[in-house]
Amino acid sequence: MTDDQNLGVTAAKGFRAAGITAGIKASGTPDLALVVNDGPSLAAAGVFTANRVKAAPVLWSEQVLKGGLVSAVVLNSGGANACTGPLGFQDTHATAEKVAEELKLNAGEVAVASTGLIGVRLPMDVLLPGVATAAAELSATGGEAAAIAIKTTDTVHKTAQVTSPAGWTVGGMAKGAGMLAPSLATMLVVLTTDADLDAPALDEALRGATRTTFDRIDSDGCMSTNDTVLLLASAASGTAPDRAEFDEAVRTVCADLARQLIGDAEGASKEIRIDVTDAATEEEAVDVARVIGRNNLLKCALHGEDPNWGRVLAAIGTTTAAFDPNRLDVAINGVWVCRDGGVGEDRDLVDMTGREIVITARLNAGGATATLWTNDLTADYVHENSAYST
Amino acid sequence: MTDDQNLGVTAAKGFRAAGITAGIKASGTPDLALVVNDGPSLAAAGVFTANRVKAAPVLWSEQVLKGGLVSAVVLNSGGANACTGPLGFQDTHATAEKVAEELKLNAGEVAVASTGLIGVRLPMDVLLPGVATAAAELSATGGEAAAIAIKTTDTVHKTAQVTSPAGWTVGGMAKGAGMLAPSLATMLVVLTTDADLDAPALDEALRGATRTTFDRIDSDGCMSTNDTVLLLASAASGTAPDRAEFDEAVRTVCADLARQLIGDAEGASKEIRIDVTDAATEEEAVDVARVIGRNNLLKCALHGEDPNWGRVLAAIGTTTAAFDPNRLDVAINGVWVCRDGGVGEDRDLVDMTGREIVITARLNAGGATATLWTNDLTADYVHENSAYST
Repeated sequence: MTDDQNLGVTAAKGFRAAGITAGIKASGTPDLALVVNDGPSLAAAGVFTANRVKAAPVLWSEQVLKGGLVSAVVLNSGGANACTGPLGFQDTHATAEKVAEELKLNAGEVAVASTGLIGVRLPMDVLLPGVATAAAELSATGGEAAAIAIKTTDTVHKTAQVTSPAGWTVGGMAKGAGMLAPSLATMLVVLTTDADLDAPALDEALRGATRTTFDRIDSDGCMSTNDTVLLLASAASGTAPDRAEFDEAVRTVCADLARQLIGDAEGASKEIRIDVTDAATEEEAVDVARVIGRNNLLKCALHGEDPNWGRVLAAIGTTTAAFDPNRLDVAINGVWVCRDGGVGEDRDLVDMTGREIVITARLNAGGATATLWTNDLTADYVHENSAYST
Repeated sequence: MTDDQNLGVTAAKGFRAAGITAGIKASGTPDLALVVNDGPSLAAAGVFTANRVKAAPVLWSEQVLKGGLVSAVVLNSGGANACTGPLGFQDTHATAEKVAEELKLNAGEVAVASTGLIGVRLPMDVLLPGVATAAAELSATGGEAAAIAIKTTDTVHKTAQVTSPAGWTVGGMAKGAGMLAPSLATMLVVLTTDADLDAPALDEALRGATRTTFDRIDSDGCMSTNDTVLLLASAASGTAPDRAEFDEAVRTVCADLARQLIGDAEGASKEIRIDVTDAATEEEAVDVARVIGRNNLLKCALHGEDPNWGRVLAAIGTTTAAFDPNRLDVAINGVWVCRDGGVGEDRDLVDMTGREIVITARLNAGGATATLWTNDLTADYVHENSAYST
């Protein structure tokens, strides 16, 4: 499909993209994407993994983003280029230089993102020619092909967009299906807009959006070495947007993509929304939600459609959040199976047959709330991840 | 078998025990154990879960142990009596009173421990008559029956003992197969000794031992509401032990039982030892080991016998421990697959076909070390825990 809903990074004016098969993946599926900002503005912002073990492309792109200008982003699947030492960093550098050479750009304004297995050098002999191929295929409708080329274990490609009545658009693409965790996931996300904003404004919009979207999905508690979220603005619409409206549009696109990531998490059969309410602070609400969302026993129970609320309480009890154990309430899909820390409504009233499950934990300690999304833990997750690199 | 190696809590002189079927479990297998200290001393120490959501028997037994005297311990499987409110606490109290009545003891010196599903009241109509049956069956060789009666998803019962040339013995039993986590696991452990020590000495020995044994096994990162480890001293050997020798004996028995817990973890096919070395502090070494041991992606890889060391580095990178990402070394079963944060020896040299796997993470930041045991993550774990309460 090439309808507007799938244009992703080329939904906004001023961008071209391509996705091609360079031969990095043994599977022979698309593995290289290129996104180019034709301007007139090159303003950009980026958010990267909080992992202290950072992949070479993250180290490179963090430097690029310090300048606040990005003319192109080159992304590959089929290899993370993490834990590859100085030679791996040289590979990233060479990739940026190749993009710059092909497109007559400044390599210092070319961001690089990689995803795949850690600890393996990229096959530069096929990657660099792939950059040339991608450059030749760049088009204003290439957003979908780019989204496809960054998939790893994703079963579907992910794009989203919002268009303002004021005439500007925010669009984006994402990849990620496992290793989703706090402070970003193994996700590569590129957002584009034709609105006219400078780098500091983009940075503020992007950080505000990721804080309550990508930072609040956690499929398996595992933080990646490669997480990258970029926002590029071309100003091609000629419109300086209302800041509040723009921030909300970026948040909407991020939330849409984040939800798609959870919907496609490795081996998952349930999408689980955890609402923590009446917490003393938002930070504590997030902490409690994350601890619940990472509890393997609970994730197994939810997979089995078992409303085992005791595991929710056992998880909450490991946090330092303010609460009285005798005043905790827990609902599963709206049935308050736990009241005042003890047995509440009949657990047989809980219908868990749907794909989406909502767990509500009411701490009764204040007025703050937070929502986090996670998945169930399944045998398919185990199977998929026990043979990933072999 | 009733040989010495299986006497567990009755290996030491001065103790009688029993394990019977009260009818608490629907399965009809043994579900009630009783351990009695016939003295002359009743000195005791206890360590309990750090979970803030504590089961009624934990709240009760913590009070009992404050007095430093325990004459009997009654333990049931088939129900955790957690999140059961004031009525659940009354059930625990009534159980202690029943033991006291049957054995002419002070109920304030009767510890209670429960394990099983959270959020369900215990069937007191069968539990209390069961106490009478158990009291009638107490014997100086009842340790094995007691160990059998506290099993839940355990496939084997667990006992251990050490006898000193000085004439005293430390023995014990444990149950636990899942929910094993820091600051104790869902484990019920009763240790007995016929050595003559007061409660403060026992407390010191027990805390010292659990800190490096039960606190360093972590099968699935999930902390229980019911963890209880008790050490009872009868002084029946008439021997006041050398303190260092006694502490070491308690540590040896705890390490033995902890190792048995990991060996029987739910659905596990691998027993994984994580050695963190050259850390700046022991606390940081433990933190790094725990983060590695809880990484679901790594646990899946190890299940698949895949030496995916990148997942070890990605886990280490989420900690705040002192290290330079470019100076991390990782070995799997002795093969240094990662050196200086990058590719090391050939991963094909790693033999992972055995049940035991050793991961060594060298932080090169100091002289501290720590060892933690965990398991792999398997489809069997998912199956076992997705249908636990149904």
